[in-house]
Amino acid sequence: MEKPVNMILELVVTMGTEFLNIMDPEDVEKIISDLPFRAKIEKISLEKAHKRVVAEDVYATINLPPFSRASMDGYAVKSENTFKASEDKPISLKLLEAVGAGDVPVKRIENGTCTEVSTGAPIPEGADGVVMVESTEKTDVTTDEDVTNEILIYESIAMGQNIASEGSDVKKGELLLKKGTSLTPDKIGVLSAIGQVEVPVYAKPKVAVISTGNEVVVPGQDLDYGKIYDINSRTISDAVKTCGCMPIHSEIVKDDYNTLKNKINEFEDVDIIITSGGTSAGAGDVLRTVMDEIGEVLVHGIAVKPGKPTLICLIPGKTKKKILFGLPGYPVAALMVFYIFVAPFLRKAACLKVDSNVPKFNLKLSRRYRPARGRSHNVLVKIEGDTAVPILKDSGAIASLAQADGFIKVPKNIEILEKGSMVEVLPFETS
Amino acid sequence: MEKPVNMILELVVTMGTEFLNIMDPEDVEKIISDLPFRAKIEKISLEKAHKRVVAEDVYATINLPPFSRASMDGYAVKSENTFKASEDKPISLKLLEAVGAGDVPVKRIENGTCTEVSTGAPIPEGADGVVMVESTEKTDVTTDEDVTNEILIYESIAMGQNIASEGSDVKKGELLLKKGTSLTPDKIGVLSAIGQVEVPVYAKPKVAVISTGNEVVVPGQDLDYGKIYDINSRTISDAVKTCGCMPIHSEIVKDDYNTLKNKINEFEDVDIIITSGGTSAGAGDVLRTVMDEIGEVLVHGIAVKPGKPTLICLIPGKTKKKILFGLPGYPVAALMVFYIFVAPFLRKAACLKVDSNVPKFNLKLSRRYRPARGRSHNVLVKIEGDTAVPILKDSGAIASLAQADGFIKVPKNIEILEKGSMVEVLPFETS
Repeated sequence: MEKPVNMILELVVTMGTEFLNIMDPEDVEKIISDLPFRAKIEKISLEKAHKRVVAEDVYATINLPPFSRASMDGYAVKSENTFKASEDKPISLKLLEAVGAGDVPVKRIENGTCTEVSTGAPIPEGADGVVMVESTEKTDVTTDEDVTNEILIYESIAMGQNIASEGSDVKKGELLLKKGTSLTPDKIGVLSAIGQVEVPVYAKPKVAVISTGNEVVVPGQDLDYGKIYDINSRTISDAVKTCGCMPIHSEIVKDDYNTLKNKINEFEDVDIIITSGGTSAGAGDVLRTVMDEIGEVLVHGIAVKPGKPTLICLIPGKTKKKILFGLPGYPVAALMVFYIFVAPFLRKAACLKVDSNVPKFNLKLSRRYRPARGRSHNVLVKIEGDTAVPILKDSGAIASLAQADGFIKVPKNIEILEKGSMVEVLPFETS
Repeated sequence: MEKPVNMILELVVTMGTEFLNIMDPEDVEKIISDLPFRAKIEKISLEKAHKRVVAEDVYATINLPPFSRASMDGYAVKSENTFKASEDKPISLKLLEAVGAGDVPVKRIENGTCTEVSTGAPIPEGADGVVMVESTEKTDVTTDEDVTNEILIYESIAMGQNIASEGSDVKKGELLLKKGTSLTPDKIGVLSAIGQVEVPVYAKPKVAVISTGNEVVVPGQDLDYGKIYDINSRTISDAVKTCGCMPIHSEIVKDDYNTLKNKINEFEDVDIIITSGGTSAGAGDVLRTVMDEIGEVLVHGIAVKPGKPTLICLIPGKTKKKILFGLPGYPVAALMVFYIFVAPFLRKAACLKVDSNVPKFNLKLSRRYRPARGRSHNVLVKIEGDTAVPILKDSGAIASLAQADGFIKVPKNIEILEKGSMVEVLPFETS
């Protein structure tokens, strides 16, 4: 008698899959911070270097300024010629030429002569100071056949005054930017100053982003009965970008053992795989089974709400171990687990500062909040004036995402948060 | 007698150009906040929408969830069938079928029957509640020819329990995202949920970035005597991007009246022009002269150090007025003027929040700082532990940019900042 209905038998078996070991968030954070990752280095053009991180110390390849230049508009002189000059007793110098920024001086300054220089102009040979234009006056001396410009100097200047001498700012060979420097516009300016067009930076870790589920379809397609649009591919990809990593989009994968296994194996080149869906201990969940076969499960189950069924695994590969984060399928849960557990790791892998620097707000809770016992809670909130209003919908709700300005963390030992308690609101991101 | 040397005569004339009216920073900020700007709207694909700003209210085009679905793994039942069930006295229901997420139920629930459902699966007709799997037990009832699955139900459930009914999250036609919402990943998720592939956003203002100066050459080229590498094109372009605008790169423009005028007129399509260099009241400065002819000078000279020679103008055009910001040539001065005066305007033009949300740090000043009188000062600082160390180099210095972590603002009425005073450090940017 071959009686048992196969389909139902299979369900009985898979429904037996249980979380092996629900871990506290702190223990999971420790496991994540110990995950192996080796950053690669690449050379990229300065045009694309904004927000990247310098991977090798950068030394100056030229002097800055590259030549001695005037730091004021005025007249280049021999400073000793001005020693007797004063407001009521100017001395007179013969004007040789005028040199603008970008020009090359032709004439050498001898005693009794000067050259007009603009800010940034090279200092003529023989000069050792610049009298600023405000301390001078131009006069014409007319002889039989000629008009000569004479400059009256009303100020005595010191040697080197108003000159930025070659290398006084940066000396060739000097350390300019340390490895690990974040390439904000000012630092990119430093590289431009020495004429660099490329810079060695840490390569962006490649992160495959896979939505799983038989019910999930790509936005823009028709929505058949029983189906929902894919949300997590897009949200997680965008969130991956803000962590300095490169998301690699995947087609949606059915909750089927072979399909999922093949898809994961397809991403041989990536560093990290983030899936969403297929992690609960329920029917149709195959990620855990695939991971038990091809990887090593480090975490399956975190004592946090939402986000309990999260999976973290190592997958051996030809050259390196890949890391897999299996996020829950519900978008709110997926995003929260991403921001709390995954983002710090991605930022570290990208060699960014681990703290995202998104400013946090300290606000008053608008109403009493009592978490369920035994788990840490992360609660979406909406900011209204100086209060944080908890959004108490389940993590499948989209309306809550539409309203949320961020979330608060409620540790597991908290039994009640009274109305008016100060809470720290963590925005998902800002721009 | 044609005697006067033309070149020198010309210098005498241009050196006569003076700042007309040095303004206080607060007055300049007021002028800038009154500058005209009308944001345009464009439709873009959701893939590119990250960090953009929604330009029209977005309404839900479908119900969410789009169908009534199970919010737990369990059994769909008629709730009234469970009213007598309890932990010690289960009731038994006949299992009709198993429906996974993405499946379509075939059989209608009648009294005495149930259907196994996974989280996210559609609720079969006739059912009005889901008993979670933990409150059930599966048994087999064997008759002569057949094995029937019977489900023991140990819990009484209410109508609607563990069901997310169609539209309970979001109703078709409901306002989802307000105009002005910043498209962080969570908000992009909301649009994905209703299957959107495009979204109306504010167009990025187009900003031409022009470095001027006869001495300035493109990084990567040979550096002839008297020349320096262009820094500002790159730094300002990258800084423009972080303000939600689109930088449009220009070749370097010589300090020549016609060249500069033609280049500015060439950018007919842009909204804003940012130049650097050519703004001092000195030899070779032509921007002011060009602006006097083709535009309206609103500001020339700000009582701030560095940044005094900054120019702000309106340029009439065929369809709209363009705005020109003429930054000083020195990179430190150019960047500081950009961040303090230009960035808030660009962010507003891009419909971002004006405050950049880059977190500020309150730190102790490492040493006494005495500003020169009569001007506001912006001073680069390096952060060392909990102190801000002023970098006291001139604004032509690149070494100071290499070291700086940000800057502090010192208002003009401050005569001295003692060592240990608390100062607010504004980082240029963070990532």
